[in-house]
Amino acid sequence: MRTSLPTTGRSAVRQFIRHYSAPLDSSIPASKLKHVPTSGTYPKGFLVSGTHVGVKPSNKSHPDLALIASDRPAFGAAVFTTNKFQAAPVQVSRSVLEKRGGAGLRSIIVNAGCANAVTGQGGVDDAWAMSSTASAQFQQSSQPDDHLGPNSLVMSTGVIGQRLPIDKILNKIPVAHSNLAADHTAWLTTAKAICTTDTFPKLLSTTFTLPGAQHAGVEYRLAGMTKGAGMIHPNMATLLGILCTDAPISADAASTLLTAAVNKSFNCISIDGDTSTNDTVAMLANGAASPSASTAPISSSTPEDYAAMAAILTSFAQKLAQLVVRDGEGATKFVTIRVRNALSETDARAIGSSIARSPLVKTALYGKDANWGRILCAIGYTSPELLSSPASSVIPTKTNVSFVPAENSASRDEGVLKLLVDGEPQRVDEERASRLLEDEDLIIDVDLGVGDAEGTYWTCDFSHEYVTINGDYRT
Amino acid sequence: MRTSLPTTGRSAVRQFIRHYSAPLDSSIPASKLKHVPTSGTYPKGFLVSGTHVGVKPSNKSHPDLALIASDRPAFGAAVFTTNKFQAAPVQVSRSVLEKRGGAGLRSIIVNAGCANAVTGQGGVDDAWAMSSTASAQFQQSSQPDDHLGPNSLVMSTGVIGQRLPIDKILNKIPVAHSNLAADHTAWLTTAKAICTTDTFPKLLSTTFTLPGAQHAGVEYRLAGMTKGAGMIHPNMATLLGILCTDAPISADAASTLLTAAVNKSFNCISIDGDTSTNDTVAMLANGAASPSASTAPISSSTPEDYAAMAAILTSFAQKLAQLVVRDGEGATKFVTIRVRNALSETDARAIGSSIARSPLVKTALYGKDANWGRILCAIGYTSPELLSSPASSVIPTKTNVSFVPAENSASRDEGVLKLLVDGEPQRVDEERASRLLEDEDLIIDVDLGVGDAEGTYWTCDFSHEYVTINGDYRT
Repeated sequence: MRTSLPTTGRSAVRQFIRHYSAPLDSSIPASKLKHVPTSGTYPKGFLVSGTHVGVKPSNKSHPDLALIASDRPAFGAAVFTTNKFQAAPVQVSRSVLEKRGGAGLRSIIVNAGCANAVTGQGGVDDAWAMSSTASAQFQQSSQPDDHLGPNSLVMSTGVIGQRLPIDKILNKIPVAHSNLAADHTAWLTTAKAICTTDTFPKLLSTTFTLPGAQHAGVEYRLAGMTKGAGMIHPNMATLLGILCTDAPISADAASTLLTAAVNKSFNCISIDGDTSTNDTVAMLANGAASPSASTAPISSSTPEDYAAMAAILTSFAQKLAQLVVRDGEGATKFVTIRVRNALSETDARAIGSSIARSPLVKTALYGKDANWGRILCAIGYTSPELLSSPASSVIPTKTNVSFVPAENSASRDEGVLKLLVDGEPQRVDEERASRLLEDEDLIIDVDLGVGDAEGTYWTCDFSHEYVTINGDYRT
Repeated sequence: MRTSLPTTGRSAVRQFIRHYSAPLDSSIPASKLKHVPTSGTYPKGFLVSGTHVGVKPSNKSHPDLALIASDRPAFGAAVFTTNKFQAAPVQVSRSVLEKRGGAGLRSIIVNAGCANAVTGQGGVDDAWAMSSTASAQFQQSSQPDDHLGPNSLVMSTGVIGQRLPIDKILNKIPVAHSNLAADHTAWLTTAKAICTTDTFPKLLSTTFTLPGAQHAGVEYRLAGMTKGAGMIHPNMATLLGILCTDAPISADAASTLLTAAVNKSFNCISIDGDTSTNDTVAMLANGAASPSASTAPISSSTPEDYAAMAAILTSFAQKLAQLVVRDGEGATKFVTIRVRNALSETDARAIGSSIARSPLVKTALYGKDANWGRILCAIGYTSPELLSSPASSVIPTKTNVSFVPAENSASRDEGVLKLLVDGEPQRVDEERASRLLEDEDLIIDVDLGVGDAEGTYWTCDFSHEYVTINGDYRT
């Protein structure tokens, strides 16, 4: 019967009015604790704070204003949403970066609880006020670059179509400045302050070295935080990412390195395929760990260091982006979609995205169903406009699909489970399939057999919980 | 709490193992009965039957073999899935039409329960055997066009990756032929025989006249049946549509008329955005109601009749396609997305599709939430590759979004509810909004304000039921 489940009706949705998918007391679910670091190695010269403002009146105590600052001018770059409706903080951050050529940046100021999107000129004024007020904290006297305007990037996340409680926020920026600290607790509090529907703060840090002679013996540091692409009621939330390093990177290199890293990380995850008005990933590089003031910053003139930095940044951004998928609203699965032997990387990404976005694939994963037919179908309906060659990007008789156990799988030693070989369905060992699908992590391997390019996408499943969260009433 | 609903966990999915979203006893839900006709006016010269085969062994009595036949050779055309993985019946039907130039068609043979997709050469042989066996029922002696091969189109729907029980099917085709009849009961049984996850048979019929002098005083008839795009476990189901008319239409005109009608109907609905390997809409026109054998068939040489036929066919196909949305798996809402004043029809369709496919819009509709932010967001992230001018197809300050009560709305006299005017959010009367969202039917009106083209999409919501149905185990 269609209505046999007592709580699948609309009345069930109404009974459980929630503003966040996150627990109301901000406690972290036990299953997510393993993703929250208990210590870290943070880049030199960076100071951070998370401060309570109460942007949403119902928020009486949780930090919702994050300040990420460098004790010296930093180079920086950002990648912004491609959504046609760009929120005020996106417009302002873009303008700050353009006016300054990516140089002389001192901080990033972020509020949660209100996205300051679709708020007209008043909203743009508010975003500029946040940037100016944050900048003013670092300017005790006039600076040589004052004429370039504020040196703080701005991000906002939360409800759209509502103006910020701007006075409350501006009044708390000096407090945020006085709260700045460099220890792990400060970084974790700051990562919490950018959260909305997230059930856990997403923070990572690492150390790295560079191959160039001038960097010999120097340990650099890289830290990052992000927040989820899951959606907050009553409106869409936002993907935000902030990366800080004490390595010296030129403004131009920061921009190209960040763009390349985001293309292979934050642009390769899908919770529900929706892209918000506020999505922003920014990076600051302050060179605080440079061996000397004369160390040449990483740029296209230092190709060896540039390549090393690109690999480090991409890998780090992928790990950060994966945390967003781990916290997809209602997600019970973490799925890596690996598309190999494609005609081009564009093809691999378009096909990976098509699979990652398919509601049928995502519900089958939730149902632990080895449903290769739905995967095949999603490969087959990838928009021809997005493929490099509609005629030869996908050839049914060359297509292979397998399930591969993840590294942490209990059935890892049983190896790959082939579902489709050169377009021919395989006799699937259903017991093996169900063991694989019991795992939280799974790799879907698609071998297109038409080229040598590849791309990877990360996604989660669609669950009842997703519908409950996103079908809630606004209140 | 994230897990407060007792049946939202995975264990709930396991408890309710179902093969179909349709009731197991094939009874029609009370809320859908209004969509099932109790009589009809069917085209002359067409005979139909629905016969039990038991393609799925668990099906002991429901008809699952449909035969739609013309008592004389008919012109015909079909529109097929664009999925790269084309099922065997799609390949065979395409070949039949090509070999015959769309002429001399006698029947369409359809089985439910197995899609005959991704079944290799054996599957293609099976589909040809279905076509040949159906054709043989109408050839008592050799015909002048025998050299063109079988004259029956073939459709299959159901599980993919499995071979048909072909002998069972072939053995029942003569029975299907002997069951042929022209009355309403026969048409309804036939419409039931093509169903899979559908909860009700989708059958419509109408009469029409043509403006040309040679058609004066003639009443033509048009009947159609379709089945849902909802998905059957364990694999995707299929959208099938069959249109029959006793008007005379040339093969070429049948093809261009059908393509145009499908583009504005079956290609403008979205249940979950997934497109199957088997999707097919076919039309047969046998001219049985022509005033005389010398009546010129509708073609591009009869522009007035052609235009009239185009309008009739498009409107009829839209009504048929809307029935599929009405029966979307787990759907509680029927939503018309009207995109107006677009730069091009392509833009209107791309933007309509983006809204119709957004899981966030669909869950908000399920939750009865006037969430214009999600609609705006979906407009904004429409792929630039699909727009005629990425720079001017969507201009935030010219964008308007309203909710419009449907014709059958109780609050129809309250008029339009404006949500966004020229990019400015409106103060929304939440009580008015919730009255509107109580309705099963709703129109989302998007006025892009940049041109004069328009397009309409139809969609339904995403419910808990959708996840339950599609997250089920295969058994």
